[in-house]
Amino acid sequence: MLVCTKCGRKFEEKFLLQCECGGTLLVRRNYDSFLPDPRFFDIRRYLSYLPVDASFLPKIPPIITPVVEIEGIEFKLDYLHPTGSFKDRGTFVTIAKLKEEGISEVVLDSSGNAALSLAFYSMISGIKVHIFLSYDAKPGKISALMNLNAKVHFVEGDRMKVHDSALEFSKATGIPYVTHWLNPYFIEGTKTIAFEIYEEIGVPEEIFIPTGSGTALLGVWKGFKELMEIGEIERLPKLIAVQAEGFESLCPRSPRINKLADGIAIPNPPRLEDMKKALEETGGYCISVGEDDTLAAHHWLKARGLLVEETSATALAGYWKAREEGIATGNSLILLTGVKR
Amino acid sequence: MLVCTKCGRKFEEKFLLQCECGGTLLVRRNYDSFLPDPRFFDIRRYLSYLPVDASFLPKIPPIITPVVEIEGIEFKLDYLHPTGSFKDRGTFVTIAKLKEEGISEVVLDSSGNAALSLAFYSMISGIKVHIFLSYDAKPGKISALMNLNAKVHFVEGDRMKVHDSALEFSKATGIPYVTHWLNPYFIEGTKTIAFEIYEEIGVPEEIFIPTGSGTALLGVWKGFKELMEIGEIERLPKLIAVQAEGFESLCPRSPRINKLADGIAIPNPPRLEDMKKALEETGGYCISVGEDDTLAAHHWLKARGLLVEETSATALAGYWKAREEGIATGNSLILLTGVKR
Repeated sequence: MLVCTKCGRKFEEKFLLQCECGGTLLVRRNYDSFLPDPRFFDIRRYLSYLPVDASFLPKIPPIITPVVEIEGIEFKLDYLHPTGSFKDRGTFVTIAKLKEEGISEVVLDSSGNAALSLAFYSMISGIKVHIFLSYDAKPGKISALMNLNAKVHFVEGDRMKVHDSALEFSKATGIPYVTHWLNPYFIEGTKTIAFEIYEEIGVPEEIFIPTGSGTALLGVWKGFKELMEIGEIERLPKLIAVQAEGFESLCPRSPRINKLADGIAIPNPPRLEDMKKALEETGGYCISVGEDDTLAAHHWLKARGLLVEETSATALAGYWKAREEGIATGNSLILLTGVKR
Repeated sequence: MLVCTKCGRKFEEKFLLQCECGGTLLVRRNYDSFLPDPRFFDIRRYLSYLPVDASFLPKIPPIITPVVEIEGIEFKLDYLHPTGSFKDRGTFVTIAKLKEEGISEVVLDSSGNAALSLAFYSMISGIKVHIFLSYDAKPGKISALMNLNAKVHFVEGDRMKVHDSALEFSKATGIPYVTHWLNPYFIEGTKTIAFEIYEEIGVPEEIFIPTGSGTALLGVWKGFKELMEIGEIERLPKLIAVQAEGFESLCPRSPRINKLADGIAIPNPPRLEDMKKALEETGGYCISVGEDDTLAAHHWLKARGLLVEETSATALAGYWKAREEGIATGNSLILLTGVKR
């Protein structure tokens, strides 16, 4: 079932983005044991823990990404996916749910990794995608989306105007708006990050996660929580939300602006209360990083072959800052979420 | 040890490309059992079967690539690697061997996936790479190599002139020439393709493999042979070498030229005798495909989200041709080796 995180109301597992009370939704199922399917070395390994009918899943799965140790720090390379970001996990499950519901056309307002992932998985699943973009979106991203058969709609105006236009279009046409910011099935996909970490290295002390809309943070949180509910693990890792200066939602808002981390430049995420809960329940915290630190982390990663986008580099910058402040425990895992394009 | 495939002479496991008799070399070790390391879901799963000291391995491993079934055909997505091709497997092992031998500078003549892979893994392992290229190499590939700190040397003339220049440079400077066409450690990396297939789907009836220099074909052959020698499996899969028209080495040479499959446009591979043996021992055969069939296969794959380079598409084109001729068995696996850039 789906459960509202605010009023507790329960819903059938349909494709639903919010409760009538305005609260956000999460899937709630009970599992007896944690038994990954040994025939698979990709997300299909965890099919029993995904709330979708396997027959609707797209044919190209997100992979199990390696955890590597470099100069004493552990990294999970969650950018080595079919479209180059962890978003593929969430999209993979979402698409299956859309197919199950007979939805064949969707709307999204994004020019980032989520849009690319949605366009890719929709293309291979026979779903038509409308992407709303501002005229100043990067040409490379626009052509990548078009190359994946997305129908691109250009909007004059800022990010909010693009968002409003997408919603208007959705209302006028009845074509569902599928933002991953709210979609509970997206988090069912990203929770497999936790399952993998557990199989690879057990439960780390703490995990540093680039955090804007919270889809990575909440996935890791929910995955480890399910493992604890099953009785497979006895404690949760401390989750550290790394945010970008000027766009903080969990940390105090900085007067400076970190323009490098566009993937987490989301000042008002709709799942803010869920994100706060993830930090509280795990004993974690928020840490905010500026441009200089992001750039330094990005250079450090690049020189070691971790060719990720700047947004991912914030997680390392956050770890460095935590270590400097003496609050990093030392047994830390850093989640790298998107490839450098 | 290393064994010459022609005269049988044995050598210590040093970095050596050929026997004094001109024969090619393969690593020969005996394994008692097949016990993949369950903590890893990437190439480190098979560390016990790689002839290198683990401490010298690069930090970013090739992954375990998914096998997926699409419209009744099975594909192994062996392009979802850190640099986008199966070559990462061979380079990963090669780099460890070079480090073990204290080699810190190497030469290669290639502008393809092998060069990109070598430049990437060298960069993260502190090895300096010289790449010899003709002036008409694609600008995108040149800048990608330079971005990975490779020292690019331009040569006026055709492919053979580039090759000769690289060899001359190697002789003059003493910097080793590391062509994967001959390097036995490269095949130790690509043999893990077989280990994965076995863990994922057992032993398929037949596997279609794009074949130029034979590094994929010979890896799959050696991997399955080792599993048979261990007693883990009872038969080898039939290996089908798919070649490009005009560049055949195993099939009769066609008067037509398939210019689309530059990754296998290698008319005189130095491991030709080994490649013949792989087909003979497995009951396989060679099949050659033209441009039209390659293009049709490439379109088919692209529409299904298998965003691979044309060289990979030859494997599907070869499968189609074999099916048309009534020689495909029906339980076929197609190896997709490189991403579309």
